[in-house]
Amino acid sequence: MFSGTNLPRVGNYNYNVVLSLIQASDGISRVEIANDTGLTAQTVGVIVRRLIQEGIVHESGSSPSAGGKPRTILRIIPTSAYAVGIHFDPREMSIVVVDMTGQRLAHSHREVSPVLDPEVLIEQGAMTVHRLLRELGVPAERVLGVGAACPGPIDQGQGQVTSPPRLDRWTEVPIKRLLRKYVGFDVVVDNDANAAAIGERWSGHGRTSSDFAYLYMGTGIGGAMFLSKNIYRGVSRNAGEFGHLIVEPNGTPCYCGNRGCLEAMSNPAAIVKNVHAELAMGHRSSLAAAYEQSPALVDHVTVCKAAASGDVVARRAIDRSAELVAQCAVLIANAIDVELLVIGGKSILHVEEIYRQKAAEYLQTQPLARKMHTVRVAISEVGVDGAALGAASLVLHAAYAPDTGDLTSG
Amino acid sequence: MFSGTNLPRVGNYNYNVVLSLIQASDGISRVEIANDTGLTAQTVGVIVRRLIQEGIVHESGSSPSAGGKPRTILRIIPTSAYAVGIHFDPREMSIVVVDMTGQRLAHSHREVSPVLDPEVLIEQGAMTVHRLLRELGVPAERVLGVGAACPGPIDQGQGQVTSPPRLDRWTEVPIKRLLRKYVGFDVVVDNDANAAAIGERWSGHGRTSSDFAYLYMGTGIGGAMFLSKNIYRGVSRNAGEFGHLIVEPNGTPCYCGNRGCLEAMSNPAAIVKNVHAELAMGHRSSLAAAYEQSPALVDHVTVCKAAASGDVVARRAIDRSAELVAQCAVLIANAIDVELLVIGGKSILHVEEIYRQKAAEYLQTQPLARKMHTVRVAISEVGVDGAALGAASLVLHAAYAPDTGDLTSG
Repeated sequence: MFSGTNLPRVGNYNYNVVLSLIQASDGISRVEIANDTGLTAQTVGVIVRRLIQEGIVHESGSSPSAGGKPRTILRIIPTSAYAVGIHFDPREMSIVVVDMTGQRLAHSHREVSPVLDPEVLIEQGAMTVHRLLRELGVPAERVLGVGAACPGPIDQGQGQVTSPPRLDRWTEVPIKRLLRKYVGFDVVVDNDANAAAIGERWSGHGRTSSDFAYLYMGTGIGGAMFLSKNIYRGVSRNAGEFGHLIVEPNGTPCYCGNRGCLEAMSNPAAIVKNVHAELAMGHRSSLAAAYEQSPALVDHVTVCKAAASGDVVARRAIDRSAELVAQCAVLIANAIDVELLVIGGKSILHVEEIYRQKAAEYLQTQPLARKMHTVRVAISEVGVDGAALGAASLVLHAAYAPDTGDLTSG
Repeated sequence: MFSGTNLPRVGNYNYNVVLSLIQASDGISRVEIANDTGLTAQTVGVIVRRLIQEGIVHESGSSPSAGGKPRTILRIIPTSAYAVGIHFDPREMSIVVVDMTGQRLAHSHREVSPVLDPEVLIEQGAMTVHRLLRELGVPAERVLGVGAACPGPIDQGQGQVTSPPRLDRWTEVPIKRLLRKYVGFDVVVDNDANAAAIGERWSGHGRTSSDFAYLYMGTGIGGAMFLSKNIYRGVSRNAGEFGHLIVEPNGTPCYCGNRGCLEAMSNPAAIVKNVHAELAMGHRSSLAAAYEQSPALVDHVTVCKAAASGDVVARRAIDRSAELVAQCAVLIANAIDVELLVIGGKSILHVEEIYRQKAAEYLQTQPLARKMHTVRVAISEVGVDGAALGAASLVLHAAYAPDTGDLTSG
């Protein structure tokens, strides 16, 4: 049932409301905070004083006000806290360090052999984290924690990945416990799509949107959603598996056991397979010579670059993928009626506009509520480092995001 | 951005938390309320005293406690308040009066000619409301308001239906304003599926579920969802349009402009059409004689009854419909990861079990998170009056449901 709330919880909640407003703004005054939050000037004053004492916020110049004396502008002190993000992908590991404003200060990226022992990789990742922090001169006591983004599904209770589709060796590896052991900081774990969506909320389009869905196109296809200003994870923390919405019944078999999932029809490997099939039939293409030399040369990045330059075969494959993504966008709009769909992840690199335009076209013409409002489509501002940056944002978000759920749980 | 919260809002919220717990329980003590909500004994005592003073709650006997003295049991006084629900359907109008516990005390049901002027129907509905209240001896001052359930999409700002698929004459009729004018009580308007889901939350399976989806099968197919204990309506209040999830690309054209929506493939008219086609081909069926006499005799209710009695042709049509509904249930599970799917509405009458079993079978074997948990399936306890009862519950819900959103909005 419902839980009640009480004063300490209200205090924490309002503290986070004020902090997140300062974080999202480009400089804001106490009066503006009171106006925007509905809190009294007195409450805002008390919270701001605490934020200044804690070294999180500082007074930074002043702006003219409508009536009399100029208003003091408050800003986050970027160096007041730091967070680390690690993205474990089937093929690579990315690590970023961000400051309190979510800005990336350092990063590391490496390809990973699929046969490497996960514990060895986690230990190496922890060493890289400490090297990056040392190079930046960040003291350990200012590090809020480490966020880890992994392909879902994730068992949050255990802090481990449960039967990830392309990461067999990771099944039931206790990522949270191992990473904590090697890195020495607090660790939060989430799936890559949730992490990317939180990154978007913290420093991208999501800053100004109460309800948005995120379609994450990496090695696989995942998703996440912010509903009524909070991330919605679902009862088993596996909401937003948009990659497994069926876009073509009786289509390509998917590892999940169904056929015709967006994931199976439209992930990078599926797109490459379609292009190879056309090239094998001898269709004219700028990729034909490379394919004849070795099919492996025509990989997903090559296909995307060729599609962006107008190659007909590559473009046809990306167009088909974009249509399936757009179909899925309509399903999302009809099911959860968001105002914004953000598409991100490294597998849309070079062809962002093709995906964006097709989804926008379908969303203008197909959802039932299209006469009431059009769902906007945006490409993630967070970029290809999205999941790692998002993983770092997980830490900031867990520490500082106002969550009405916090009002009612211990 | 986020809004802050303050003491009066916290007070209202906790009041509703305590009230809803008493409402959902079959008698509960102050100590149990404190345990369940995390509120202090003192806060619970103050709120309960207010509820008793207001005549909403009474002390009703006592139960033995583990330690010493027996605990006083608190219950809702059913006659402390009443609500009215009206369901406007393309083919019929249902009206119910419920008490404070959501129990139905009186109802009225009539078929409606599609050419009747909406304002005339609203006026007649208002007269029926007053007749039912008079017959029950309910004083006007105890009526909290009237809830109206209509087919979506609904423009909440205007309190009117926007281009309803089968209710052309209702387009842009200001239901809220007209009903208020004729009935004289406060009016809330919502779509039939949201109303049915709120009814389920108030007096059905939803009482004990934090996250559930509702698939509403009436003349059309709609849906709704409770996420994190609150109804989620979406940015334009049109979330949950599960009837327009595409279950067969290039399938039957739908009025929404797409093809192969669940709505187009599986609404009562589509099911009847499939049965008629088989009967026209001379397939053996218990419905053949009636069909030969006049196809109109083989309507949707007749088909459902025949399917329930084992007629092969009717059963095949319902089985196919149940498979499409089950496919849609998997989409819902993958997108929003709920713990429970409730199926309701009058068009599943007689064949509830066929729909329930097929959805349960798909949900056990197909969603990505099936290893983490199985989504349960239940048939609405609220029954065929669901939308009208739900419309009445809208009023109770608006008045008394704890909504963390209330903590942060004026």
